[in-house]
Amino acid sequence: MTDFAWTRDQFHQPDGIIYLDGNSLGLMPKATAARVAKTITDEWGDMLITAWNKAGWMAAPARMGDRIARLIGAEAGHVVLGDTLSIKVFQALAAALSLTDRKVILSDRGNFPSDLYMAEGLVGLLEGHELRTVAPEEVLESLTKDVAVLMLTEVDYRTGRRHDMAALTRAAHDKGIITVWDLAHSAGATDVNLSGCNVDFAIGCTYKFLNAGPGSPAFIYAAPRHVDTIEPALSGWLGHRSPFAFDLTYAPGKGIERLRVGTPAVLQMAALDSALDIWDQVDMTDVRAASMELGDHFIAEVLKRCPDLTLASPQNAYDRGSQVSFHFAEGYAAMQALIARGVIGDFRAPDIMRFGITPLYTNKYDLTQAALILADILDKRLWDNPKYQVRAAVT
Amino acid sequence: MTDFAWTRDQFHQPDGIIYLDGNSLGLMPKATAARVAKTITDEWGDMLITAWNKAGWMAAPARMGDRIARLIGAEAGHVVLGDTLSIKVFQALAAALSLTDRKVILSDRGNFPSDLYMAEGLVGLLEGHELRTVAPEEVLESLTKDVAVLMLTEVDYRTGRRHDMAALTRAAHDKGIITVWDLAHSAGATDVNLSGCNVDFAIGCTYKFLNAGPGSPAFIYAAPRHVDTIEPALSGWLGHRSPFAFDLTYAPGKGIERLRVGTPAVLQMAALDSALDIWDQVDMTDVRAASMELGDHFIAEVLKRCPDLTLASPQNAYDRGSQVSFHFAEGYAAMQALIARGVIGDFRAPDIMRFGITPLYTNKYDLTQAALILADILDKRLWDNPKYQVRAAVT
Repeated sequence: MTDFAWTRDQFHQPDGIIYLDGNSLGLMPKATAARVAKTITDEWGDMLITAWNKAGWMAAPARMGDRIARLIGAEAGHVVLGDTLSIKVFQALAAALSLTDRKVILSDRGNFPSDLYMAEGLVGLLEGHELRTVAPEEVLESLTKDVAVLMLTEVDYRTGRRHDMAALTRAAHDKGIITVWDLAHSAGATDVNLSGCNVDFAIGCTYKFLNAGPGSPAFIYAAPRHVDTIEPALSGWLGHRSPFAFDLTYAPGKGIERLRVGTPAVLQMAALDSALDIWDQVDMTDVRAASMELGDHFIAEVLKRCPDLTLASPQNAYDRGSQVSFHFAEGYAAMQALIARGVIGDFRAPDIMRFGITPLYTNKYDLTQAALILADILDKRLWDNPKYQVRAAVT
Repeated sequence: MTDFAWTRDQFHQPDGIIYLDGNSLGLMPKATAARVAKTITDEWGDMLITAWNKAGWMAAPARMGDRIARLIGAEAGHVVLGDTLSIKVFQALAAALSLTDRKVILSDRGNFPSDLYMAEGLVGLLEGHELRTVAPEEVLESLTKDVAVLMLTEVDYRTGRRHDMAALTRAAHDKGIITVWDLAHSAGATDVNLSGCNVDFAIGCTYKFLNAGPGSPAFIYAAPRHVDTIEPALSGWLGHRSPFAFDLTYAPGKGIERLRVGTPAVLQMAALDSALDIWDQVDMTDVRAASMELGDHFIAEVLKRCPDLTLASPQNAYDRGSQVSFHFAEGYAAMQALIARGVIGDFRAPDIMRFGITPLYTNKYDLTQAALILADILDKRLWDNPKYQVRAAVT
């Protein structure tokens, strides 16, 4: 296994914590605070509006898009940062629908709910469109010729089940269906190959595996064959061909620039910049190999010690994203007890204990320790304590 | 005039600069870098995902909305932060259209282009809708009974001309028209009274007069009589009634929370928090009075010394926002020459030299000095130098 000790050293790990929630919010790179402070003090503070050019703020969304493109197998010049993932879902779906006369968006019930909500909202604006959801295992057979767009999240946020992007994209294309892939749990987690899979559109976030911090911007990808044809629905000025001409009518910008909307979140982009400094030095093939091995290790360590848990994730590492989940009826309280012991995972209703595997800063020793502590909690039924059963507002 | 010396002292002013571009990007509060560093290091770094509750990240958009509400005459609990202004335009228009069967959006050609572009994009998704634009002075007579929504920016970004929000809202309501007011150049600039004007929806940004930094989040207001009725078109998970239940279908959240979309930009929110610490201590009536007086002063100082310039802004301070603009055929090059002398304003095509008046950190002395330097440049025809005529990518 590639040694990631040097990347691990780039992150701040709070004392006494084993962090297995990097699939929700990645750890803070040690360099980030100084990088953001520089943007605030030297760029905003001293350069003021000239920083839009001189500090490269205006070009940052495309420049960082290229750095993310390498991690997801996208062509350079076809990824741009901005907005939130939910907005990017809306934008990608609207772009896809602008290329077809069909009116059905197909997704699965394992998708992250916000993707379905945003599709619902878009369908509500359009005439005669429909959002159709099926079980994850029924997607292939549901690719019928009335489907306009297949929208899937590659990795299920609860179970870590990974869809076969290549096969489903091929099957969709065989039926004339456009694909939109959500990479929320893939970017920085799996060895995605958008170009190799011939994907049409993709979207993702940067605060999970990419470690860009809370509320960092989302990204969107459009395939070279589509990008100059799509008519943006969220036609903001920074996606205009000539934003500073202040024309009264919209004309889409060149290529991926047309999928920009409003003013980029410059401070969040600075945090992303420092996170990408680490990613620039790693190969996703190595990360994926380490992730699979670490996941297998954690599953084995947990299952041999915790007979009350059943694996919710695929056993086969190839079919998993970069997380491991277990079913346990008392999972909520058990997770609180685990957190109280310094092992941070999270819980997803109704009964899933979820653990993110992030090779950049998670190693085998962490995972063995986490399994031992989890086993101890279950052996001693520590979850059976009312204090662990109080639900927080946000979990 | 209220003495704003104490607020002026809260901002970092680069040496040798007279900054009259706070209507594009406000100055950096001295406290911001430390406030954001704390959010990165102590909250993200050490509290990790627990910061969503413990550090108040999840509730910040509504909490900061209340602080902005006070500045714009909105009812508490009816303003929420998030996304960019362009996205908020789309959201407000879609919300307004969800309340009526009419299909025309009326705006004026003095509006900021991105507002018109976003309306175009929305109209493109809908069936049979229309965006109608008229000259700013024709708005009143264009309020006909087929108009669904009147969308205006209160203060014209080029000239500073201020629409009469109270009168136009009243006239619109007389015809059954819903109003959407863009406060980009009003929040922190004029004594807006949304509630008193009976406005239906409003939107605005925080990086101009509010000084929250580049790419800081936008805000949206919905009147109490509408907020529980509107169906959000950008129906993201954080606008859901119960985001962490992960239901498969969307149900709008309570009140203004339904106009949230995705994960808030936490670092930008921290910068906004430090900017609002200053705003919390000022009264918009005082700011408006100072702004009017400073604007009158600058107009007088410039016009008596610069016969080549003609006033593009209303002469009467009541009819102006918080900026002063002049027409000058060589305005682009003259502005570059002015910037080279340390006076930062900006240029808007075709011939407008624009100066922001920001009482929190701009005083009479600055404005007199700026007028003297401007007069010197014009007297010596310093704009007639090729180096000042090269256009930057972003101006």
